[in-house]
Amino acid sequence: MVRINNNYQKLQGSYLFSTIAKKVAAFSEANPSAKIIRLGIGDVTRPLTPSVIKSLHSSVDEMADAATFRGYAPDLGYDFLRKAVCDNDYRARGCDISEDEIFISDGAKPDSGNIQEIFDNDNIVAVCDPVYPVYVDSNVMSGRAGDYVEETGRFSDIIYMPCTAENAFAPLIPEKTPDIIYLCFPNNPTGATVNKSELQKWVDYANEKGSVIIFDAAYEAYITSADVPHSIYECNGARQCAIELHSFSKNAGFTGLRLGYAVVPKDLKRDGVSLNSLWARRHATKYNGAPYIVQRAGEAVYSPEGKREIQGLIDYYMENAKYILSGLKDAGYTVYGGVDSPYIWLETPDKMTSWEFFDHLLEKANVVGTPGVGFGSCGEGYFRLTAFGSHESTREAVDRIRAL
Amino acid sequence: MVRINNNYQKLQGSYLFSTIAKKVAAFSEANPSAKIIRLGIGDVTRPLTPSVIKSLHSSVDEMADAATFRGYAPDLGYDFLRKAVCDNDYRARGCDISEDEIFISDGAKPDSGNIQEIFDNDNIVAVCDPVYPVYVDSNVMSGRAGDYVEETGRFSDIIYMPCTAENAFAPLIPEKTPDIIYLCFPNNPTGATVNKSELQKWVDYANEKGSVIIFDAAYEAYITSADVPHSIYECNGARQCAIELHSFSKNAGFTGLRLGYAVVPKDLKRDGVSLNSLWARRHATKYNGAPYIVQRAGEAVYSPEGKREIQGLIDYYMENAKYILSGLKDAGYTVYGGVDSPYIWLETPDKMTSWEFFDHLLEKANVVGTPGVGFGSCGEGYFRLTAFGSHESTREAVDRIRAL
Repeated sequence: MVRINNNYQKLQGSYLFSTIAKKVAAFSEANPSAKIIRLGIGDVTRPLTPSVIKSLHSSVDEMADAATFRGYAPDLGYDFLRKAVCDNDYRARGCDISEDEIFISDGAKPDSGNIQEIFDNDNIVAVCDPVYPVYVDSNVMSGRAGDYVEETGRFSDIIYMPCTAENAFAPLIPEKTPDIIYLCFPNNPTGATVNKSELQKWVDYANEKGSVIIFDAAYEAYITSADVPHSIYECNGARQCAIELHSFSKNAGFTGLRLGYAVVPKDLKRDGVSLNSLWARRHATKYNGAPYIVQRAGEAVYSPEGKREIQGLIDYYMENAKYILSGLKDAGYTVYGGVDSPYIWLETPDKMTSWEFFDHLLEKANVVGTPGVGFGSCGEGYFRLTAFGSHESTREAVDRIRAL
Repeated sequence: MVRINNNYQKLQGSYLFSTIAKKVAAFSEANPSAKIIRLGIGDVTRPLTPSVIKSLHSSVDEMADAATFRGYAPDLGYDFLRKAVCDNDYRARGCDISEDEIFISDGAKPDSGNIQEIFDNDNIVAVCDPVYPVYVDSNVMSGRAGDYVEETGRFSDIIYMPCTAENAFAPLIPEKTPDIIYLCFPNNPTGATVNKSELQKWVDYANEKGSVIIFDAAYEAYITSADVPHSIYECNGARQCAIELHSFSKNAGFTGLRLGYAVVPKDLKRDGVSLNSLWARRHATKYNGAPYIVQRAGEAVYSPEGKREIQGLIDYYMENAKYILSGLKDAGYTVYGGVDSPYIWLETPDKMTSWEFFDHLLEKANVVGTPGVGFGSCGEGYFRLTAFGSHESTREAVDRIRAL
């Protein structure tokens, strides 16, 4: 008799965004005339840029001709894309990363969910609280999280590092030593950042303890402050302790196109084994490469024109962030993020819980946001809005909230 | 100190096709003038068909306009594609499968590698020998395979079901009862099939024992014999015991586009839990949907025009299969497969080992095939050729082999 993976039974409720989608669908059905504005899930709304579209059409045409048709992609990604990534995201920033340390994938979400596979199940995991749910859930599924404790809303074997207004949403080194440390800066959901010297402390700590940092840099394109690092490899010694994850979703609008990459430096070794070789083996066995046409689209993002266009997208969304920030401040809200990040993190008014505020906003303003507590117990009393809407809908949403 | 997943250390050598690629690269470098013909890896060579190309261009244009842009896909796939799959691959064949039992993915390889995650690590796995390496390696990685035994070339905790000329390459029910049974028909690598009554025996056995069958139907489009089932759900009771995996790679040439689907019926429950809900949770947590444009391309495969074009592709490759079969028979080889399958499975001549014959073919005929032993110890003395080349290269390859 087959037995299921009982770790799945420890997962709490359904995935945050599925729950939100169900609540919104129910409200929408009951109020068909309500014009709902979604500033909840971090999905982009601007179309793909002209360079990317042009590249897609051109590579689709290649697929129509036997002479230029491409079948299986190289397991780890096409050289043209690995080179573009390496040159632009690393060499140009003085980071010592080479092409064969870059693994093209179908996005930072799958990478952040799958990366734990190359580690033993007995490792101790540390996450920020609040946190992007995939880091926790993927470790629950593999049995690394222990049991769910109803009273705390936390898993018994995970180290939670509180990120609140008191510490400017930057985690402190935990008392107990973790083996695997998930960090995400600019942060989802708080929009917080750390400067280079703060990040260097984490790198030094990981190297001292033999821990590995999974550094999620999905939002690096939104950084405007000069002292905020775009890559963990700007820190000394990060090649010995850090894996970095990147996305094309938030800079280039690839949420529906699916492209990302992981960086696993060859100097990162544990038990005498290169983690680069483990991840390569994982890719070769369980993955079959991102579509050729999507990899070509990724390459187009790095062309001079592509870069200008992407900057235009980011500027567009950051204008929204500015409008949300100033609008909510004017309305008396306490708000964070939104400067080096497309996320605005606000304190709920009148001591409402996160879900109370979610229902309040949905019902009174027909605006959808994300309850902070959905990201962890330290997110209770907070709420996330995203800058990924159109100018028009974002302004209308903010104006509706101000009018409450 | 972080510890790695030591199960990875038990994996043998590198992935079969990577090894072949390295050998071919080395030969090519040493013999730059050799015109190598590849009938090894199962990659297609014909371009995408006009309907698919048209659909891709049209959906790319949708992505260029804010009004029609698509961001994150639904976790489990777009309704339009799930409906097309359900109507054409199941309802049209009288199989009782509904849309919400279909999970769109980026291919049968990832699905066949990831599906084991929803099962407990203590389950006993049975595979055919020879076998598609992903079934074994993904279970090695998760710790279900036990230790590698040098003398047998097998893992201690896996049940291997020999498939040889003696049993017409159809596995017998094993002595020890497995919990998870991987079956692939039409088979990769042997090209063998089972008829409906033979497959029914496996379904009955699984239901009797409470086992789950992972049925890989990646090659079903190549079936020509009337009594060979296209889906395991043609068998009574399969909804209670079987998961089915499908690919768009071999019928529609999507190897470089990446699309597949898994079917997990809601009646399939173990420990009181629906496996459909477990796989849905896995998708929602670790996957972010196949690209919209690729899902639209998949939809085009099911249009009347699309179906005609796909049949043209299959006919093209099956003409190759026929040429290889008859050519090798004429040359005195003992050959199997190639009738309901794009794979030809041959006995190596003169008692050569599989790798000896690989080197022999590469060096003397500059033809690349796949050594049978790469698929398992029962594949020793066999060799796989694929029908996925062009007519011209396939004919030349066969003529060169005949001339040896």
